[in-house]
Amino acid sequence: MPLLVWGSVALDSVETPTAKRDNVLGGSAIFFSYAASYFTAVKLVADVGDDWPGEHTDLLEARNIDTRGLNVLAGEKTFRWRGKYMPNMNDRETLEVHLNVLGKYAPVIPDEYRRSRFVFLGNGAPATQRKVLEQVPDAELVVADTMDLWIKNERDELGELFRRIDGLVLNDAEARLLTGDENLVRAGHAVREMGPKFVVIKKGEHGAMFFSADETYVMPAYPTPDVVDPTGAGDSFAGGMMGYLAEQLSFGPRTLKTALAYGTLVASFTVEDFSLDRMKQIERPDVERRMEQYRRMLSF
Amino acid sequence: MPLLVWGSVALDSVETPTAKRDNVLGGSAIFFSYAASYFTAVKLVADVGDDWPGEHTDLLEARNIDTRGLNVLAGEKTFRWRGKYMPNMNDRETLEVHLNVLGKYAPVIPDEYRRSRFVFLGNGAPATQRKVLEQVPDAELVVADTMDLWIKNERDELGELFRRIDGLVLNDAEARLLTGDENLVRAGHAVREMGPKFVVIKKGEHGAMFFSADETYVMPAYPTPDVVDPTGAGDSFAGGMMGYLAEQLSFGPRTLKTALAYGTLVASFTVEDFSLDRMKQIERPDVERRMEQYRRMLSF
Repeated sequence: MPLLVWGSVALDSVETPTAKRDNVLGGSAIFFSYAASYFTAVKLVADVGDDWPGEHTDLLEARNIDTRGLNVLAGEKTFRWRGKYMPNMNDRETLEVHLNVLGKYAPVIPDEYRRSRFVFLGNGAPATQRKVLEQVPDAELVVADTMDLWIKNERDELGELFRRIDGLVLNDAEARLLTGDENLVRAGHAVREMGPKFVVIKKGEHGAMFFSADETYVMPAYPTPDVVDPTGAGDSFAGGMMGYLAEQLSFGPRTLKTALAYGTLVASFTVEDFSLDRMKQIERPDVERRMEQYRRMLSF
Repeated sequence: MPLLVWGSVALDSVETPTAKRDNVLGGSAIFFSYAASYFTAVKLVADVGDDWPGEHTDLLEARNIDTRGLNVLAGEKTFRWRGKYMPNMNDRETLEVHLNVLGKYAPVIPDEYRRSRFVFLGNGAPATQRKVLEQVPDAELVVADTMDLWIKNERDELGELFRRIDGLVLNDAEARLLTGDENLVRAGHAVREMGPKFVVIKKGEHGAMFFSADETYVMPAYPTPDVVDPTGAGDSFAGGMMGYLAEQLSFGPRTLKTALAYGTLVASFTVEDFSLDRMKQIERPDVERRMEQYRRMLSF
């Protein structure tokens, strides 16, 4: 089952304590799409400018990512982000942001995408996320991401969105900000009570937590010694998770838990190099091998 | 199989964002002993002063904790610690420390304890930990704890100790300090290469990581919404872990992993109230019920 994703596409410049890269492929929709593509066909919707390198489109198309919804807008520039990671590889500082085309135009879902049943709303203004939603009337599973900016400034719109989605993915700091509760177990359930049927709190190197009316659980991150660049880990996590759900055509409790594990593992590959570089080297069997190790790790 | 523990006994004063307690029972050897007592008989070695309330001894004895090694020293005062937790319940500030009897006398292991085969060296000067070790010639499994003070000031002594122990338990900040590596997976293995056959890194609310020559794994913390006071969580973890190993009379890889899980669960009870208050309310079946939930949580 194809999976629709709307979100950002970026050209990132990233500095870590040991290396740096300029103008590499990034953005939530890119990491998400590539991560999901191990499991299912993906339909991508995003805006870029005419500075967009055409080879990036080829790279995506080669992985069964439909780019008819990737709008290359003449006279516009692609969203750019420059950031620097601290020695702990967790905290980061944003050095430059050029929004450019990002958030400038209302999202238009191509006709060929409108029957999509699995939908991911990448981080964006909640009102804009809702505009995507209105164009996919057959959606059966809608999962959204958000960020501190909207939690601080668009609380009402966010509440509106929460009542229309099935799942919400956010990080630990965002969950604390949204609820004012430092305890993530309580915070997770408090977010769930705002509307989403399930909530996933991403904790970076510490894994992810899941909350539904019936379940609370934690999945540790896969312990990789090779953390080169954490950019896109959270989006890859969401992509792996949603990709697996779309492949399984299901989102029952057991499938969801397995999906979180797949998200965890794809993200563990993403951080092992800059941009999509590590993901480009792997195929589904590599993910499955790591899954076997992960299952062994968690069984006793 | 009885389990020998040497470590500190304290009277703690603890302040959290919502409550406080003065002069409650604490110290690494106390949390360790009580946590281990769900699984096995414990032999406690520690020094206290003549301000030691006798009812604390009764409480320990009632749980099959042998206190013949608890030296009540006339003219001395018990170690006291006063601390305050930040709203995140993870960071804490030490407001007052009165070492008093702590670290003042060389440890003496009672004759009745010297045949012990399972030994835990609570946090203390590494040279002192070695003096304990020299008095238990039959020890088959020796696990030690340490802290930043010894890592900074007693590096050589610590290296000596590491070559004589089977396992080391330390927290994430200590592992980073000891190795200079921010990545905990690499740090864990680097510590192991200093001598211990296995290393456990405690990550508080984020669980624990295990490292041996053959294995690397992570166990998430049990997600409790009721974190009242985290004091003693790490010592309870070690106590639950070692208690289970002593009960099983084994420390093979599979038993070790299950032991880490038991440590995780006993610690999750400890944090649900001040001092030993939550642990006092539970019995082994309560631990087993939580273990069933934990196993379910980790299976998919």
